[in-house]
Amino acid sequence: MNKLISTLYPAIESELQRQVARIDEPRTRPFYEMLTYHMGWTGESAGPEATGKRLRPLLVLLTTAACGADWKPALPAAASVELIHNFSLVHDDIQDKSDLRRGRPTVWRKWGEAHAINVGDALFILAHLALSELKERFAAEMALKAEAIIDWACLGLTRGQYLDLFYEGQTSLTLNDYWPMIAGKTAALLSACTHVGGILGNADESTQEAYRDFGHYLGLAFQAHDDYLGIWGDSALMGKSTDSDLATGKKSLPVLYGLGQEGPFARRWAEGPVSTEEIPALADQLAREGAKVFTQEAADRMTDLALQSLRQANPQAEAGEALFELANLLLNRQS
Amino acid sequence: MNKLISTLYPAIESELQRQVARIDEPRTRPFYEMLTYHMGWTGESAGPEATGKRLRPLLVLLTTAACGADWKPALPAAASVELIHNFSLVHDDIQDKSDLRRGRPTVWRKWGEAHAINVGDALFILAHLALSELKERFAAEMALKAEAIIDWACLGLTRGQYLDLFYEGQTSLTLNDYWPMIAGKTAALLSACTHVGGILGNADESTQEAYRDFGHYLGLAFQAHDDYLGIWGDSALMGKSTDSDLATGKKSLPVLYGLGQEGPFARRWAEGPVSTEEIPALADQLAREGAKVFTQEAADRMTDLALQSLRQANPQAEAGEALFELANLLLNRQS
Repeated sequence: MNKLISTLYPAIESELQRQVARIDEPRTRPFYEMLTYHMGWTGESAGPEATGKRLRPLLVLLTTAACGADWKPALPAAASVELIHNFSLVHDDIQDKSDLRRGRPTVWRKWGEAHAINVGDALFILAHLALSELKERFAAEMALKAEAIIDWACLGLTRGQYLDLFYEGQTSLTLNDYWPMIAGKTAALLSACTHVGGILGNADESTQEAYRDFGHYLGLAFQAHDDYLGIWGDSALMGKSTDSDLATGKKSLPVLYGLGQEGPFARRWAEGPVSTEEIPALADQLAREGAKVFTQEAADRMTDLALQSLRQANPQAEAGEALFELANLLLNRQS
Repeated sequence: MNKLISTLYPAIESELQRQVARIDEPRTRPFYEMLTYHMGWTGESAGPEATGKRLRPLLVLLTTAACGADWKPALPAAASVELIHNFSLVHDDIQDKSDLRRGRPTVWRKWGEAHAINVGDALFILAHLALSELKERFAAEMALKAEAIIDWACLGLTRGQYLDLFYEGQTSLTLNDYWPMIAGKTAALLSACTHVGGILGNADESTQEAYRDFGHYLGLAFQAHDDYLGIWGDSALMGKSTDSDLATGKKSLPVLYGLGQEGPFARRWAEGPVSTEEIPALADQLAREGAKVFTQEAADRMTDLALQSLRQANPQAEAGEALFELANLLLNRQS
C-alpha cells in the first residue's frame, strides 16, 4: 500500500476517536459505547475489519495533500465526512432491516431501533461539531464553503434515500430512475469529500471543480461496479444466496436494464422472489439479454470520466499517486 | 395576545417555508410533501392547529428584540431551532410508537418508519443549512458562537433521549435520575434559543448568560408543570385514559417521587399497567403520599429561577413584556 495512506489511517482513527469522545460522560457511558461499537473500536470483533475502509476521510486528506497543502489541519473535515457516512449507515441498517454490518450485528439488532435512531442522530451532530473546528484552522471563507458543500451533500443523501425507499414498492422502473438515486446515495458525499479536499488544499476554482467531478464519477463508477459484482461477482454466484442482488430484489443497474428488455428475465422477475437454486441460471439469462456488458460498459465509462477529472486536477506528488491508486483499487476490485 | 407576537408568527412561518423549500425538486416532490405535512402546512387538517406553538423560534426572536436589536436578521436561527425541534419530534414518534402528533397521524404512521427516519434526518440537515445563513447577516464570531451553542444543545438532546429510552426498562429510578434527562430533552434546546437570541441581539456576556439561564429554567419548569398536568390536569383525570401519565407508565417527576416513598403507590406501580378505572384513585393516592405538593413546589421553584434570570437580563420594551407574558402563559396553563 502507498506509504502516505499507511500514515493517514492511524491519524484518521485517532481524530475520529477524539471527535466521538465529545459525547462521553459518566451518566450516559453506555450511549457512548453504542457509538464506539458501531465505529468498530469496542465490543465483539472490534478492530480494523470492523472499522470499514475509511475511504471518505482518505479522499479528503489525499486531495488536500495532492494540492500541495498540509493534510493535518483538514483532519476535522475528514472525521466529519466519515461520521456522516456512519450516521447514514446506522439509519440505513434500520430502514433495510439489515442484521449485519462489516460482519457484526448492527446497532439496531443489538440495542433496538429506538436507540439506533438516536445513535445515528448523535453521529450526525458530532459530524457538525467536527466541522465547526475548521474555522480555527482555515480562513473563514474556506471553512464556510466546506461546511455548505457537506450540508448540501447530506441533503442529496436524504433525497437518494427517499428514492431508494420509494423504488422498493415500484414495478415499472427504468434506467432513468437509476442515476438520480445513486447520485444522491453514493456520489453526493464522495464528491463532497474531494471537493472539500480541494478547497482546504487551497486549489484554484477550476481545480476544485475537477476534484469535485472526480469524486462524483468515482461514486457512480463504484456503484455501477458494485452492482455488477452483486450479480456476477464470485460471492454473488458462489456464496450464500443472500450475497446476490437477484435474491434480495435490489433495483440495481443490471436489473433495471433487464427489466427494460421485457424478455424472459423481466417475466421471471415479475413473478416474485428468486430462490437460491435459480440464481446462477437467472444471472446467465440476464447476461444473455445484454445486462452484463451494459453494466460493465457503464462502469468503464464512469471510471474513464473519474480518471479524466483526476488528471485534469493534476494532483501532486505521493498524494496524487495515492489518489490514482485508490481509484484503481476501488474500480477494479473483484469482490 | 401581545401585538409583537402576532407580528412574529407569520414571519416565522414564512421563514420556515422558505428553509424547507430547499429540499423540493420535481423528482422527490412526495418527500418534500412528507416534510410539509409534518410541519402542518399540507395534508389533512393542515393549519394553525397542526403547526404547533412555534415556541422556540418565538423565544429566539423575542430575546433578540428584547436586547434592543432588530429581530428580522435572526429569522434563520429561529427557523433552525424549530426545524431541530421537529426533527426530534419525528424521530421521537417512531421511538415511542406514537400514533398522533398535534391531533394528526404521525409521519411514521402515514409513510412507515423508514421514510420517517429519513424525514427527520432531512429536517435536521435543513436546520443546519438555515444556520449557515447567519454568516451573511452577523459578524462571523456571533454566527459561529450561535451555531456551536445549537449543536451542543442537539448533543444534549440525544443524551436526554438516551436516558429516556434507558429508563423505560428500569425499575429502580430515583429523583436524581429525573433532572439530567429533562435537562437534555427539554431544557437544552430552550436554553439554546434564549442564549442565541441574546448573542444575535448583541447583548453583553452577562446578559447572554442570564438569557441562557432563563431558557434553561423555563424548560425545567415547563416540564415539571407538564408532569403535574399529566396526572392531575383536567384531561388526565377526566379525559381518555391514555391522557394520563399513570396509564402510559411515563417516568415523570411525581411518579419518581412516589416510587421513592416506597408506599402503596410504589407497590401498585410495581405490579404493572394501570387500568382506566384505577387512575383517579391512584392519582389521589400519589397526592396523599406528597407527590402533588412536591411537583407543584418543584415547578414553582424552577419558575422563580426562570423569572429571576429573565429579570436579571432586563429585557427591553414590548419584546421584554412578551417574554414575561410567554413564560407566565407556559407555566400557568391548566391543560
